[in-house]
Amino acid sequence: MSILVVGSIALDTVETPFAGADEVLGGAASYFSTAASLYNQVNLVAVIGSDFPQEHLDFWHSRPVNLAGLQNQDGKTFRWVARYHMDMNSRDTLDTQLGVYAGFHPVIPAEYRRSPLLFLANIQPELQLEVLEQVDKPRLTVLDTMELWIMTARPQLTEVIKRVDMLLMSEEEVRQYTNQASIVRGVRQLLNMGLKFVVVKQGSYGALLFGADGTYFSAPSHPLEEVVDPTGAGDAFAGGLLGYLSTVDPGPDGCYSIDDLKRGVVHGNILGSFVCEDFSIDRLRTLTLDDIAERYRAIVACSHFDPNWWPIKVSN
Amino acid sequence: MSILVVGSIALDTVETPFAGADEVLGGAASYFSTAASLYNQVNLVAVIGSDFPQEHLDFWHSRPVNLAGLQNQDGKTFRWVARYHMDMNSRDTLDTQLGVYAGFHPVIPAEYRRSPLLFLANIQPELQLEVLEQVDKPRLTVLDTMELWIMTARPQLTEVIKRVDMLLMSEEEVRQYTNQASIVRGVRQLLNMGLKFVVVKQGSYGALLFGADGTYFSAPSHPLEEVVDPTGAGDAFAGGLLGYLSTVDPGPDGCYSIDDLKRGVVHGNILGSFVCEDFSIDRLRTLTLDDIAERYRAIVACSHFDPNWWPIKVSN
Repeated sequence: MSILVVGSIALDTVETPFAGADEVLGGAASYFSTAASLYNQVNLVAVIGSDFPQEHLDFWHSRPVNLAGLQNQDGKTFRWVARYHMDMNSRDTLDTQLGVYAGFHPVIPAEYRRSPLLFLANIQPELQLEVLEQVDKPRLTVLDTMELWIMTARPQLTEVIKRVDMLLMSEEEVRQYTNQASIVRGVRQLLNMGLKFVVVKQGSYGALLFGADGTYFSAPSHPLEEVVDPTGAGDAFAGGLLGYLSTVDPGPDGCYSIDDLKRGVVHGNILGSFVCEDFSIDRLRTLTLDDIAERYRAIVACSHFDPNWWPIKVSN
Repeated sequence: MSILVVGSIALDTVETPFAGADEVLGGAASYFSTAASLYNQVNLVAVIGSDFPQEHLDFWHSRPVNLAGLQNQDGKTFRWVARYHMDMNSRDTLDTQLGVYAGFHPVIPAEYRRSPLLFLANIQPELQLEVLEQVDKPRLTVLDTMELWIMTARPQLTEVIKRVDMLLMSEEEVRQYTNQASIVRGVRQLLNMGLKFVVVKQGSYGALLFGADGTYFSAPSHPLEEVVDPTGAGDAFAGGLLGYLSTVDPGPDGCYSIDDLKRGVVHGNILGSFVCEDFSIDRLRTLTLDDIAERYRAIVACSHFDPNWWPIKVSN
């Protein structure tokens, strides 16, 4: 049960109020692949330049990450430079150097085309459409995006939204795209476009799952004492969600059960929390499924409560 | 099992981007008493001026709210005027007229002094200390406060914190008081002051319960499609929490079980969500325990998930 991902690979330079990292492995596809490969095989489509460090390729070779779709082009790998603010929930992008990413067009190898799970990581909506043209109907297609495309490529983004099953957005992105102050109303507008599911990422507060069938689920997050670097948390979230789904069977109708989707969102929160504990993908390098299971139990313990309560009689 | 509350009663003028309300019943003690009186008897200590509308007193007379400790003084009732911003999470106070509240000193009637539950609503820490001097040792003392006292009366506030069992604070207040960016670290600092419990209010994201015994619980909120007026949500939260606790028995050691405290926080979120659905205490006027039970079930349904997950074996 392999997972196809198309997205960016970058070399990130990140500064937080407490520490920094220089030219480390970054990009949505890097975070996603590393997280999801803890669960199953990942088929990666992306582009790197001739300066891309071999050690990162060696790392992925040590994991079930298929690199047949990784384009290695003459030129420089995509660079991203950012600085986080004191509260770590906001950041400024200081520099972006597209490099080989500027001329990137995804090519899906024949062996990838029947991947039952597809993650369209955050890249230009035009490129996401090119991917959809090249795949057989996957069982579940999941879309991520960002503010930049909502502002600059709205018609194309709208086209992609209409063609996928599940959309991941932050609360701010829901408000921006739908122009609704209420998340509940904004999500309803999105579901009316044909989506089966919308997942609203709430950062340190967890995530919400909304279904066109009326499903509503609020997944608690794992509280971190210290956030080292939140970069990639949303991509690792997607990796946990699709990674988990790749380990379970859908029903006879080809759809995942709501219970499995709920557990998937919890796995997303778990991977998103782990990735914040170090720079780049570093925390994921040593992470095991046992670590994930332990955090799963911790989240159950901190969020479940006695489901039964009946009103008592009050005397006046 | 009565609940003693000491706090403010006000006449509020509130404007939101969508509507407004003029000189309506407000003040922390009003919200708390109305919410908690759905569960049990509330013993109210506060001050009103000679201009206070009789209809509000009539309303409380129709509920199990004991007004023996309500001081009725010559002069004007406390007034508060505020305007909410577009996102309703922030507001500007436009005017505050203390009126009779300026000379207020709480006097606890003899019949109130053995109330097993005490809520020190948001008033000056000096007045909260005066209350603590007048009560027999309650089973549980719960403290609320606000940014103003953290900034202007920190030593007195610190004195109160050291003398209560449970503190309610927003995330911003935890950061302000402890000077810690991390909520987990800030709460640990607060617990080290001798508190048994800290509840961190997260507005529309719910609330966190931390215990000196290591307890950690994340209570999901009920998603509202439309927030009419968030004024009083924190006070109604406290009303739901103490209201619920007033209906259950503590253990032989006089302490509430962690399971009951968790359910109490859920009841807090429920009352906090209801109060946002209308101006003033208006939604609470018609609210019933059956409505609360229905929302309790809805929160269970949207937050619980399969507690069991074991890692599968991954082939490389």
